[in-house]
Amino acid sequence: MPEFKPPRPGEIEIELPVAFDAGVYFIGRIRTPWTSTSDCPKSSSQRSDVVATIEIFPPFTAGLRDLGLFSHALALYWLDRARRDLIEQVPSHLATPRGVFALRSPVRPNPIGLAAVEIVDVGASSLRVRNIDCIDGTPLIDLKPYYASIDAVSDATRP
Amino acid sequence: MPEFKPPRPGEIEIELPVAFDAGVYFIGRIRTPWTSTSDCPKSSSQRSDVVATIEIFPPFTAGLRDLGLFSHALALYWLDRARRDLIEQVPSHLATPRGVFALRSPVRPNPIGLAAVEIVDVGASSLRVRNIDCIDGTPLIDLKPYYASIDAVSDATRP
Repeated sequence: MPEFKPPRPGEIEIELPVAFDAGVYFIGRIRTPWTSTSDCPKSSSQRSDVVATIEIFPPFTAGLRDLGLFSHALALYWLDRARRDLIEQVPSHLATPRGVFALRSPVRPNPIGLAAVEIVDVGASSLRVRNIDCIDGTPLIDLKPYYASIDAVSDATRP
Repeated sequence: MPEFKPPRPGEIEIELPVAFDAGVYFIGRIRTPWTSTSDCPKSSSQRSDVVATIEIFPPFTAGLRDLGLFSHALALYWLDRARRDLIEQVPSHLATPRGVFALRSPVRPNPIGLAAVEIVDVGASSLRVRNIDCIDGTPLIDLKPYYASIDAVSDATRP
């Protein structure tokens, strides 16, 4: 387990459950130019235009069949360097604590990152995408085709 | 482990890895009117307008703070009744196999479901939402605020 920075004033730590309820497989790896969280572009309002490569591990590569028919995908990945026990956090752009479920912070009970990516091209065991901003080597846990009819809420509002 | 239906002709089973790479906590439970997968509305083009309740378990309830400031959220949930080993599948609307990463099928290596939900209201330990179509009792694994600027791709295309 990596060493974590101490919580900021106002942040709330919880005691996590003693056991997990289910297990995930790492099905691939995301290759990006960023080697540390401080390198990664800030993502709350804009994603990077850099092309990243998502490598799929055997035996999961056949799952890519026909993904190239879609223009976009949802990538789900595992933020394995993040602590999981800060239930309220004070983001740098806010003065007061906010609940983790109202934040896109990598620090969350299940450290799953999500990006709506543009598909550049799909190969036999990898694909290239735009609009993802995680650290190089981040484990992939799922890829889903993006359906504008259910996934795109253009008039969604935020504070 | 529940009994699964045999694969359809053309579907491909894989041998899953012997061990998991990471663990998830079930942080809540989704209450819907649907008690079996056959009851659930078909979701590939349209979500149900029914109001569902997402209950958050202790010690995660404080994570809801300020979520009500957003109009929409991304709900991630664990489809714990689904098999995980069909890497190519033949959906009922297609005659040929498609890779799992080009399908929104619940059957996937990591059986994570995702819905962009409209937030109706947020309480101390639960919230009410529209546009989710899973079975009653489905475990919740994450909630994220929806950011139209990065999550909404209205011009995404599909075959």
